[in-house]
Amino acid sequence: MEQLYIGADIGGTTVKLAFIKDDGSIVEKWEIPTNTESEGKSIPTDISQSIDEKLKERNIHKEAIMGIGAGAPGFVDTSSGFIHEAVNIGWKNFDFGSHLEELTGFPVWVDNDANLAALGENWLGAGKGCTELIAVTLGTGVGGGIIANGNVLNGANGTAAELGHVTVVPVGGVPCNCGKTGCLETVSSATGIVRKAKEIARSYPDSLLQTLLKNGELTAKDVFDAADDGDEAAEKVIHEVTDVLGMAIANMAIAINPEKIVVGGGVSKAGTQLLAPLEKAYRKYALKRTAEASNFGIAELGNDAGVIGGAYLVKKNK
Amino acid sequence: MEQLYIGADIGGTTVKLAFIKDDGSIVEKWEIPTNTESEGKSIPTDISQSIDEKLKERNIHKEAIMGIGAGAPGFVDTSSGFIHEAVNIGWKNFDFGSHLEELTGFPVWVDNDANLAALGENWLGAGKGCTELIAVTLGTGVGGGIIANGNVLNGANGTAAELGHVTVVPVGGVPCNCGKTGCLETVSSATGIVRKAKEIARSYPDSLLQTLLKNGELTAKDVFDAADDGDEAAEKVIHEVTDVLGMAIANMAIAINPEKIVVGGGVSKAGTQLLAPLEKAYRKYALKRTAEASNFGIAELGNDAGVIGGAYLVKKNK
Repeated sequence: MEQLYIGADIGGTTVKLAFIKDDGSIVEKWEIPTNTESEGKSIPTDISQSIDEKLKERNIHKEAIMGIGAGAPGFVDTSSGFIHEAVNIGWKNFDFGSHLEELTGFPVWVDNDANLAALGENWLGAGKGCTELIAVTLGTGVGGGIIANGNVLNGANGTAAELGHVTVVPVGGVPCNCGKTGCLETVSSATGIVRKAKEIARSYPDSLLQTLLKNGELTAKDVFDAADDGDEAAEKVIHEVTDVLGMAIANMAIAINPEKIVVGGGVSKAGTQLLAPLEKAYRKYALKRTAEASNFGIAELGNDAGVIGGAYLVKKNK
Repeated sequence: MEQLYIGADIGGTTVKLAFIKDDGSIVEKWEIPTNTESEGKSIPTDISQSIDEKLKERNIHKEAIMGIGAGAPGFVDTSSGFIHEAVNIGWKNFDFGSHLEELTGFPVWVDNDANLAALGENWLGAGKGCTELIAVTLGTGVGGGIIANGNVLNGANGTAAELGHVTVVPVGGVPCNCGKTGCLETVSSATGIVRKAKEIARSYPDSLLQTLLKNGELTAKDVFDAADDGDEAAEKVIHEVTDVLGMAIANMAIAINPEKIVVGGGVSKAGTQLLAPLEKAYRKYALKRTAEASNFGIAELGNDAGVIGGAYLVKKNK
């Protein structure tokens, strides 16, 4: 009987689930809606029932399942699977791991979703086999995951690797959702890029950026497209954003000394248009020897990173 | 027969050596001069001979020795004990660990000296028992050591935790010995504090700082003493230095999420005069939940941190 791992990636809208083989290949993946009503209390039952149905449908014996690796966007006590807080889900002091174990009868490991995505990339993606890895996710916000000595860093209370909340503008920075000001997330998220574009476009009345802004809403992708068309204002936005991000990653690299830096999330679709200036800035701010050890790559697993990381969490701990 | 560990802390001037019991108590400690001639090639022999003599003198059987844990100021491959570079000692691509193993017949583990000091504080000092710890040494330069998931971070090529080289002044910073500009070391080392004091004193012609400067050389200690006497210029220096240091530590804490931050080195003798404003700045720049998990302490083991950390390195790996 072939061993299988279950990966579960719990987001604010859907829960992604997958049966995954020992070599990381996905046997089946599916999604269920995330029911955030009543502080998300039905989620463990929803997951358990959906897994049961799928096991029956595929005629898979329960004995084949080695365990569940689950990720959630919040502060997780990885030793117990207890969730201190996961705002988008509605959980607060929720004993998710034990609950899911009881319901399914499978052993359950839980971690932060960004950490699991890093672990997924570490197993089968752009950071394959690296003992030291920094993963950065550039989307609406900025997320992070760190692998050091071959293991995910969770920290003393589940807030390790929150790269989006490194302070990059010590004085006069934009307010961040976390309550601080001048966080990296305010600069190099998709939202931050658009904010910077609006700011810079004001000084470039004839720029493509300014024209786009007059015609409606601007996206981070528009900024990269405009830069690709040679728009000076857009190039300036990308230069400034990657300079700050490169410094923040370099400073984190000084703690971790990574072999690989994996960049994912929506903004990473810009590819080398993002990576080239980012790597240049990184090498300017990193210690020479630290920079020599590391290279950059775009995340490879896309939306599957979480469930694959979940499977790997089981594989590593089993 | 009681088991003993040997700690060796190799500095540019002396090698500190100690026999240490399983509970961390020091049976005997002594020093030998560091012979940096001919690229420091005699150092392994010097250490080996000195240990042999001391074992005879104390009538200790070789079988009682569990191994040697050695620290050196440089980039170390901890898996092999190979030193990529240790400028102050003269070593470059020096196979120190294997060499010392052959000479002594004892198993040898090697790590960076700042990492061993962090490990020492983690075993018996201010960071006792912490799974996550950041140690900062404020002396002529700024050194760092990190414990995460209970283990020292060494990184991909031995440059992890080089906290002194985090960039804190992105534009127009002072040149650092490492070749970059605006490193933390240029701001919050003893040297950096004196530089800042000279800069600020110019705007305070009637200050105690200015008077001290006219009378001769100023030290970091003078700045803390002047602040203690209520000198406004000196207070401003301490405020600015601790603000930058607090932000750099907060940003590193966002990677590590430490339980404890241990501050050592000559500058740490200022005690709460340093720690109070430092902790205030840290809490301003750290994520709220990260700050809640952590507190500050002054390093407790002084010059013994290295040899005690060395002993613990053996104890952990044995």
